[in-house]
Amino acid sequence: MQPTETLHLRQVEVGGNVPYTVEVGPGVLSRARVEARQIALIHDEAVPQVWIDRLSAALSPALLLTIPVPQGEACKTLEVLAGVLSKLAAANLPRDGAVVGLGGGAATDLAGFAAASYLRGVAFYTAPTTLLGMVDAAVGGKTGVNLPEGKNLVGAFHPPRAVWCDTDTLTTLPPAVFREGAAEAYKHGLISDPSLIDRVLAPDFVPGSATFTDTLADAIAVKAGVVTRDLLEAGERAYLNFGHTLAHALEAVTQHAVPHGDAVGYGMHYAALLSKAQGGEDLTEYTRAFLRWQQPAPLPTLTYDDVQPYMARDKKADAEGVRFVLLHALARPYLTRVPDAVLREQFGVWQVEIWGGGWLGAVDYTP
Amino acid sequence: MQPTETLHLRQVEVGGNVPYTVEVGPGVLSRARVEARQIALIHDEAVPQVWIDRLSAALSPALLLTIPVPQGEACKTLEVLAGVLSKLAAANLPRDGAVVGLGGGAATDLAGFAAASYLRGVAFYTAPTTLLGMVDAAVGGKTGVNLPEGKNLVGAFHPPRAVWCDTDTLTTLPPAVFREGAAEAYKHGLISDPSLIDRVLAPDFVPGSATFTDTLADAIAVKAGVVTRDLLEAGERAYLNFGHTLAHALEAVTQHAVPHGDAVGYGMHYAALLSKAQGGEDLTEYTRAFLRWQQPAPLPTLTYDDVQPYMARDKKADAEGVRFVLLHALARPYLTRVPDAVLREQFGVWQVEIWGGGWLGAVDYTP
Repeated sequence: MQPTETLHLRQVEVGGNVPYTVEVGPGVLSRARVEARQIALIHDEAVPQVWIDRLSAALSPALLLTIPVPQGEACKTLEVLAGVLSKLAAANLPRDGAVVGLGGGAATDLAGFAAASYLRGVAFYTAPTTLLGMVDAAVGGKTGVNLPEGKNLVGAFHPPRAVWCDTDTLTTLPPAVFREGAAEAYKHGLISDPSLIDRVLAPDFVPGSATFTDTLADAIAVKAGVVTRDLLEAGERAYLNFGHTLAHALEAVTQHAVPHGDAVGYGMHYAALLSKAQGGEDLTEYTRAFLRWQQPAPLPTLTYDDVQPYMARDKKADAEGVRFVLLHALARPYLTRVPDAVLREQFGVWQVEIWGGGWLGAVDYTP
Repeated sequence: MQPTETLHLRQVEVGGNVPYTVEVGPGVLSRARVEARQIALIHDEAVPQVWIDRLSAALSPALLLTIPVPQGEACKTLEVLAGVLSKLAAANLPRDGAVVGLGGGAATDLAGFAAASYLRGVAFYTAPTTLLGMVDAAVGGKTGVNLPEGKNLVGAFHPPRAVWCDTDTLTTLPPAVFREGAAEAYKHGLISDPSLIDRVLAPDFVPGSATFTDTLADAIAVKAGVVTRDLLEAGERAYLNFGHTLAHALEAVTQHAVPHGDAVGYGMHYAALLSKAQGGEDLTEYTRAFLRWQQPAPLPTLTYDDVQPYMARDKKADAEGVRFVLLHALARPYLTRVPDAVLREQFGVWQVEIWGGGWLGAVDYTP
């Protein structure tokens, strides 16, 4: 594909108490503007130097310090957070300074929580460099870290002042990591904008194609719309968790050996099976098609009893138990409690398909 | 003094986005009511069992777990926070659960930040058991922990749903700890309600006296009024930091060997000297009178250069430097930058008075 869209940029607006803009397209890191005279840049170690340099040049001369953190979930710990906060304090980043996050969704989640808690909150800007980070983590103001007991159990709502999604950064992403992130875009198709279902699986869903910036921006716009209408997750926002209850459990039980987007791929199929079992339309062909395309990382052998305790710890749980996001039909999500017998039975159906069906094609389950 | 006021309770209202009530008087722990079916109680180890039992009985049967934490600043670390958060997660405290803090201001600051960050925020209730905690920490929604680089550098604004100030708990406080806390009440006299100046130093400022609940409630009301008008510390709220810029530096440089209220006693005198040097009324007799009454913990020998780096890290600092809260006159505070030459010169004046004057009476400076 030719990069025919060099100058085609999209802006997605996010509302709420403090509205902000998501800039999408090639080269947007060069256009980054921060309203602060002192800036700390936090990036994950896997970000190629070319993108760190591109953003640093745009932030200069206000760039006070740069803090590298480990790639992926390894950076989302209270220990890494403590180190980052000490560096901000040692550098005397002032209250009117800003924190900028650059990297995958894990690094920007960590950077956002550092910004939320340092001096009880300084301005935050975020530049995701993965598809997952752009479609999911960058919009909505959720920041945080994990605990040994589970994922995302600590954090804050701290919306960014701006989000920069430079599609050039996706060109240096390993293909499996790109496909991982597509899970959230596909999910946005299932819960809200069915046009995305075909567009995400199409051959031109590739950074640099003529259609890529628009498809990406439309996927981001689904989340932007939801969080604009529901900033504190009182209702509709929970729909974004379609597929995530099992996904978070799979991540926790495998100690994050399975990447988030891959776990969401698996989790969406479980949620589609539950939806059907609870009387909804049969959407399982869509979730199968996605898994076939995504080729997620293989899972170890797991039983329902292995994952149930982690699902019970889901943030959507309250004193009465866990709630699932299910689909009546395409773009018709709802939140419901599911009887444990149904959860267990459909886990069995899911399990047989995942390990036994062969329809996942090229996925290799040998250790 | 006879406890003649057994049934005399006061309520102080705090406004803002989510208003709440401070209940003041003997026995209010027995009246504690929490709107949650699962509750975690976090208390500091120094709280006498009788008060833990009194509150636990009021919270039962919703009390899910009780977490003791170290007394004083020792609990305000990211390490202690990590342990508390893990216990909340292991007990599966749900999103609609509540965290209750009981103890000194340090423990309730920690408990509040745990509530603010666990699952990105659960309901918080607080029951201060020290005078300092009642007058200062309990109202205003500031929560957080310290970093090795300085005090209160990490945290969140997370107002409580209710504050219970049971004056009975003050009867078991060591006298020096009671006098420590009086610094904040006296400060509220200097910056806002001069009637408190005499009332705090009067012989009947003793828990159980006929006037105590009213004096305490009036001191709390000063802070409640300020935070109601200025929830996010954009302006007036900074006035509450009168005396605190040097105080925080003294605490940091002595590694918290000097208690907060004692440091505020010292810091208010420095701020009064700065106020006079900058053309304000001479209020130094008031701050001397307070120190004479308080008999703060002795300070090690310190130079301006010892404390200056810590003052430079004050949260009121921005890219242009540190700002001080000074007084034009009683109840007329203002926020200003002070030239370094004046800061250094008045530190010298303060230093000579503190170490050399003898007017502090019984304070023993021998090691």
